[in-house]
Amino acid sequence: MKKAVVLLSGGLDSATVLAIAKAQGYECHALSFDYGQRHGAELLAARRVAEALGAKTHKTIRIGLDAIGGSALTDPGIAVPDRPQEGIPVTYVPARNTVFLALALGWAEVLNAADIFIGVNAVDYSGYPDCRPEYIAAFQTLARLATKAAVEGAELRIHTPLIHLSKAEIIRKGAELGVDYALTVSCYAADGEGRGCGVCDACRLRAAGFEAAGIADPTRYAASPPVRGDSTG
Amino acid sequence: MKKAVVLLSGGLDSATVLAIAKAQGYECHALSFDYGQRHGAELLAARRVAEALGAKTHKTIRIGLDAIGGSALTDPGIAVPDRPQEGIPVTYVPARNTVFLALALGWAEVLNAADIFIGVNAVDYSGYPDCRPEYIAAFQTLARLATKAAVEGAELRIHTPLIHLSKAEIIRKGAELGVDYALTVSCYAADGEGRGCGVCDACRLRAAGFEAAGIADPTRYAASPPVRGDSTG
Repeated sequence: MKKAVVLLSGGLDSATVLAIAKAQGYECHALSFDYGQRHGAELLAARRVAEALGAKTHKTIRIGLDAIGGSALTDPGIAVPDRPQEGIPVTYVPARNTVFLALALGWAEVLNAADIFIGVNAVDYSGYPDCRPEYIAAFQTLARLATKAAVEGAELRIHTPLIHLSKAEIIRKGAELGVDYALTVSCYAADGEGRGCGVCDACRLRAAGFEAAGIADPTRYAASPPVRGDSTG
Repeated sequence: MKKAVVLLSGGLDSATVLAIAKAQGYECHALSFDYGQRHGAELLAARRVAEALGAKTHKTIRIGLDAIGGSALTDPGIAVPDRPQEGIPVTYVPARNTVFLALALGWAEVLNAADIFIGVNAVDYSGYPDCRPEYIAAFQTLARLATKAAVEGAELRIHTPLIHLSKAEIIRKGAELGVDYALTVSCYAADGEGRGCGVCDACRLRAAGFEAAGIADPTRYAASPPVRGDSTG
C-alpha cells in the first residue's frame, strides 16, 4: 500500500484532508506539531482525529517556535484579535508551513513515502503567503532536490486537496467521508477542553462554513456561539 | 546596519561562515538547533563561538527530530561509522537543512532580516543532497514566496560562502579572519567535553583540512589524533 504523510493539526481542514487521503487508498501517517501554540487542546484533538479516521501511525514533533516569537499563536505578548483585521493576520506564524512541510519531508523519507498531504487553503485564508499554489509548487520543486530518496529517483508529491475549496465545500466533502467534526478544534484561543471562543477569525470562518454548507454545526463553544455570516448579521 | 541570520552548529564550517558574515558588515544573529543529536558539546561550542565572534544575539531552537529517526546522529539504534562509507552517509539527517533553513527564514522574518548564511559545502560533503547549489537555489525561490516579508517586497537571499571551498580553503579563510578553531566541535561522536573521537568522517576531514592548509590543528581528541590524509597513510 502506498504511504502518505498527512499534516494533522486537529482542526477541521486537516481532519478532512486525512479522510480524503484515506479514501484515495493511502496508508496514512499523521504528523502533528507542538510548536508553542497556546493550548494543548488542538493536539488532543489531533490524536482523537487520527484514531477515528484510521491513521496507521500518529507522531507529534516538538518545535520551539516560541523562541523566535512573531505571532499571536506563539507569543503571549501578542493578543489574538476578536474582530476581523486587514491584511496578513497576527495569527500568521513566520514560515510555519515551510517548517511543517520540511519535517513532513524528513519523515516521508524515513518512511519511504512519496506523498505528503497538507490542508492549505487559498480561498478563506488568502492572507497567508504560504498557502498559495505557487508556494506549494516551489516546495515540491525543493523537495525533489532535498532528499536522499529524491536523489535515488523518488518523485515526491505535495497534495493540497482543499486549496481551491470554500469552507462550506470542505465541510460537505468531510461529511460525505464520515468526518466527525465534533472531534476537531479550529479556534485560535480554545480553552483547555477544546471549546471555541466564538469570536476569533477561525471560529467565525468555521461557523459560517457550517451555515453555508447547510450542515448542523457540532462545535462546542466556551460561551455563546459566534455571530454567523454577514447574511445573518 | 543590515541584519543576517547565521546558522551556527558549533562546528568548523559554520564558525567560519559567522566570521565571513561579520566581515561583510552584517549584524549577525546566530541560530543553533537542539535536534536530538547525541551530545550537547556542539551546542556549548556554538555558544562560545557566537560570543567570540561577536554575534549580536544567539538563539537555540529545540526540534524533536529524534521522533522521526532515520539518522545515526539522532537515532541511538544506528551506529556512527568508524571508517569511510560508500554513498550517502548514515549521519545524513532527513531533510535537515530544509528544516534548519525554514526556521532561519521564520526568524529572519521576525527580525526583518533579508539575509541568511549557511555553511553548506558541496566539495567535501557531496554525499548530502541538501548541500548542492541547485538545492540552495530552490530554497531561495521558495523563501521569496513563503513569507509576509516577501509578499511585501523583501528579496531574501541565502548565502553559502563555503559552497565551493575545500576544507583547507575554509580553514585558511577562517584563520585570516581570526576564528579560534579550538572553540569548535566537528566530531559526530564527541564526548561531553567536545573532544573528537578521531575516527569518524568529520574528524578525518577536519584533520586532513588542517594538514592541507599547513595550519596547526588545535582540535582536542578523546584518545589519539586521527590518521591524517592519504599522503601520510
